[in-house]
Amino acid sequence: MNRPATKDARVGKVRRGALEETDDVVAVEEPLEIRIVERVGGSEREHSLAVTMRTPGHDFDLATGFLFAEGILRNAEDVEVVEHALPRAAEETGNVVRVVLREGLSLDVSSTIRSFYTTSSCGVCGKTSLDAIWTRKPPSMARDAPRLPRAVLAAMPEALRREQAVFARTGGLHAAGLFRADGGIVVLREDVGRHNAVDKVIGDRFRARGLPLEDHVLLVSGRASFEILQKAVMAGVPCVASVGAPSSLAVEVAREFGVTLVGFLRRDSFNVYAGATRIVD
Amino acid sequence: MNRPATKDARVGKVRRGALEETDDVVAVEEPLEIRIVERVGGSEREHSLAVTMRTPGHDFDLATGFLFAEGILRNAEDVEVVEHALPRAAEETGNVVRVVLREGLSLDVSSTIRSFYTTSSCGVCGKTSLDAIWTRKPPSMARDAPRLPRAVLAAMPEALRREQAVFARTGGLHAAGLFRADGGIVVLREDVGRHNAVDKVIGDRFRARGLPLEDHVLLVSGRASFEILQKAVMAGVPCVASVGAPSSLAVEVAREFGVTLVGFLRRDSFNVYAGATRIVD
Repeated sequence: MNRPATKDARVGKVRRGALEETDDVVAVEEPLEIRIVERVGGSEREHSLAVTMRTPGHDFDLATGFLFAEGILRNAEDVEVVEHALPRAAEETGNVVRVVLREGLSLDVSSTIRSFYTTSSCGVCGKTSLDAIWTRKPPSMARDAPRLPRAVLAAMPEALRREQAVFARTGGLHAAGLFRADGGIVVLREDVGRHNAVDKVIGDRFRARGLPLEDHVLLVSGRASFEILQKAVMAGVPCVASVGAPSSLAVEVAREFGVTLVGFLRRDSFNVYAGATRIVD
Repeated sequence: MNRPATKDARVGKVRRGALEETDDVVAVEEPLEIRIVERVGGSEREHSLAVTMRTPGHDFDLATGFLFAEGILRNAEDVEVVEHALPRAAEETGNVVRVVLREGLSLDVSSTIRSFYTTSSCGVCGKTSLDAIWTRKPPSMARDAPRLPRAVLAAMPEALRREQAVFARTGGLHAAGLFRADGGIVVLREDVGRHNAVDKVIGDRFRARGLPLEDHVLLVSGRASFEILQKAVMAGVPCVASVGAPSSLAVEVAREFGVTLVGFLRRDSFNVYAGATRIVD
């Protein structure tokens, strides 16, 4: 049922003035529809919650991670099963995921969640108020743990890039990696959308009953935006590091929730925007 | 009323093992709420349509460009005025834009548009069907125009980077630039969200009554996704070029709608994924 993450494409390559037709590979971008299914008293109610443009692969992690970060799912016990829907048309095969809640659990979807559409890099949809950003009280985290040696942080981007299988072939994917404080990589996910890559990481840990993610570092290959920080805070991650720049709101959220925020992470240099006390020699 | 695009931040910089506290600058990310106002028979109906996380600046272009690309506005005559809303709280100042339609124009907002929330890189929200992507028939474009010399294309990324004022200070912004076929730059916009940067470019031309954008090239600093192509097609842009990789769906949309799609654009090399006939020696 899983769809491929890459696709062959005929490409014209221009190199120093000469044009050559050749076969190349591009990263797949396709819509994933996320549905939630309530089962109350023998009857089933199905709600289409979101469509996100994503790279196929780890779709069940993406669906559950997205729903957890949105405050809709609380823990793995909320979920009976995650499955592909029976396609209504051939092109839907593998592109519709049903998250079936345990018998009797009702989310009052009609009043708390609106129909929404998410895209490549979009995580929070369906809310029209500027205040409706925090859907649930995030877990608290220890202010002084974990202790993160500078050299361990500085080695993470290379580890991330080394593990990025699809990017190596297409140059087209963002990555999110979850590391332990000793620098060991726990899970890495790639996607055309950087928010999707983070959702896939969180969903993997959600399904493995590994949340909250205390003592871990979340590294993203691009920039650190508000939404990356929001997802990290919901999952209880005490340190977010990005290869690119952070935004002003990412810095504010990190400071407000006691998250260590590192930007421009390189082998021999990086910037610390919040929570510097966790970083040690 | 305009809010600043950058913000000072106290940052710890780690360089070769040494930590130094210093002042730095980050790109601002703040929510912009887009409202549409119908005026029928002396009464006003106001609808909150979207909240997008954006970098302040050219907000009226962002609002109108977004609404045009979504198929909600058709031309500048649809719009009576674009203005900031009176803030309900201090932090809303400059962050809520009202697009007031001309007297008598009703968009039947309740049935055709849903409440939606967009984020940094998100353009299409509020739709739950995989089919509901094309909101309006896009303009047709000439298959053989404009003619784009390779050397002119190859020089565009440098011109874009030269003009990127905020990126130079923060390293944190995507850019979208509209070029003429002779390589002259028409308009450049920066934003934390790459879709926002494209919306700002399209909105600028919408308000200047310059659509459709036949004979132009749209260059984006990042990757070319489905949504970038969707917006370009709606605005009638015959050529999209990206510094990064395209996705599979970007390639498919480009081929279906006759758009020339260039990826990995560098000074001495690039790839052509669709519409190679427009590119000449």
